[in-house]
Amino acid sequence: MMMEKLTVYADRMSQPSRAVLLFCRLNAIDFEEIKVDISKRQHLSSEFREVNPLQKVPAIVHGNFNLSESHAIIVYLNSAFPGIAEHWRAKINSAMDWHHSNLRQGTVSYVINTVLGPATGRPLNPNAAAEAEKVLISSLSNLEDIWLNGDGRFLLGGSQPSIADLSMVCELMQLEVLDEKDRSRILSPYKKVLQWIEDTRAATNPHFEEVHNILYRAKKKFEQQRSRVAETGTEPSNKIGGHSKM
Amino acid sequence: MMMEKLTVYADRMSQPSRAVLLFCRLNAIDFEEIKVDISKRQHLSSEFREVNPLQKVPAIVHGNFNLSESHAIIVYLNSAFPGIAEHWRAKINSAMDWHHSNLRQGTVSYVINTVLGPATGRPLNPNAAAEAEKVLISSLSNLEDIWLNGDGRFLLGGSQPSIADLSMVCELMQLEVLDEKDRSRILSPYKKVLQWIEDTRAATNPHFEEVHNILYRAKKKFEQQRSRVAETGTEPSNKIGGHSKM
Repeated sequence: MMMEKLTVYADRMSQPSRAVLLFCRLNAIDFEEIKVDISKRQHLSSEFREVNPLQKVPAIVHGNFNLSESHAIIVYLNSAFPGIAEHWRAKINSAMDWHHSNLRQGTVSYVINTVLGPATGRPLNPNAAAEAEKVLISSLSNLEDIWLNGDGRFLLGGSQPSIADLSMVCELMQLEVLDEKDRSRILSPYKKVLQWIEDTRAATNPHFEEVHNILYRAKKKFEQQRSRVAETGTEPSNKIGGHSKM
Repeated sequence: MMMEKLTVYADRMSQPSRAVLLFCRLNAIDFEEIKVDISKRQHLSSEFREVNPLQKVPAIVHGNFNLSESHAIIVYLNSAFPGIAEHWRAKINSAMDWHHSNLRQGTVSYVINTVLGPATGRPLNPNAAAEAEKVLISSLSNLEDIWLNGDGRFLLGGSQPSIADLSMVCELMQLEVLDEKDRSRILSPYKKVLQWIEDTRAATNPHFEEVHNILYRAKKKFEQQRSRVAETGTEPSNKIGGHSKM
């Protein structure tokens, strides 16, 4: 099985895609990355449906074995490729399951209803954003007080980042695309969380910066759009599927 | 480790609690069940916080090892107790991860915003219910067309129920508490899903019915309340924390 070709289908704008790519890089796994651009609806193409009928990234093909869902992919790669350190056990599985319905739910909904939605032609939704912020704040508080409450620098007191650290830090990095005022308001009360992001970044560089580059570029683009709107009152023109009414 | 005492903290009104209990029963694992009644806020007690600082059920204590999150608990129990069949692999992990953000998200939000919320003093929220119904319908459609598209009677073509079957069928059983009209409207188009619920029930009885009994009783209570409201216009009087304004 080791010599089977591994292909990773990913969009680096997606947090779980980044977690899988980062895991492969950190462990020197030989793979081909195929970009599935969600903003161009490539995940809905008939070719990609052959790879993952759920039409979501990330997904892998390893030999003739197809798999989706980032956590399952990483657990699979960990067992399929030799020599990868096993930093995690049942507690790590627990942290990853918690992530789905808490940190991830808050982050995704907040980012979509403030920045990413309007950038792709969906309306701003302040009510949904306010609800999402509550979930996000409560999750950050649990991260700070419970998950990061051990002796080590990483989740559950670990001295090395585990896959749970990768998955959750990739999630929080999505907040980069927010207006810096909002990002700072949300994250700055959580000192351990901020330190943990930096520790994870340091422990996983240069791969960390390499897979997050796309976010920094997106952040800059959104900032420019916001300052243009503030200066001229002109709406951004990058709405996908929106026709100009002017 | 095998002789360590296992305690399961659960509220049978919670889907993941039921999945853990059902798994223990099916595999003849010796354990003590301690009820943590969410409607009485027992999950917020200081005793329970010692068990699970996240204050959620289910949670276990096995010897001096504490663990939360139903999937992690079941994976742990599977490795900690001998002689349990390993029906699942990476695809099953994938199905369980999918469950969190799709089937579970739709079901939980729909049930809370239609029946369970009002029964515990929260207002009806038709907008949130409508959003949740979209997620639920889309998840049911994926279950029918993708996850149940194999040759076998169970998820991914299995001939035996896996933990993914347990988890998801426990989730769908939560719809029992709905008004029967709503439940039928939502589920009846999905013939494979309905058959799969029955097959899982048959393969796991008598434990299945035993852990779901509480739901059937709740269903009856909610039906009686609804018919009382319909007949007399009187609101149900079981609101927790609500003070009568009359």
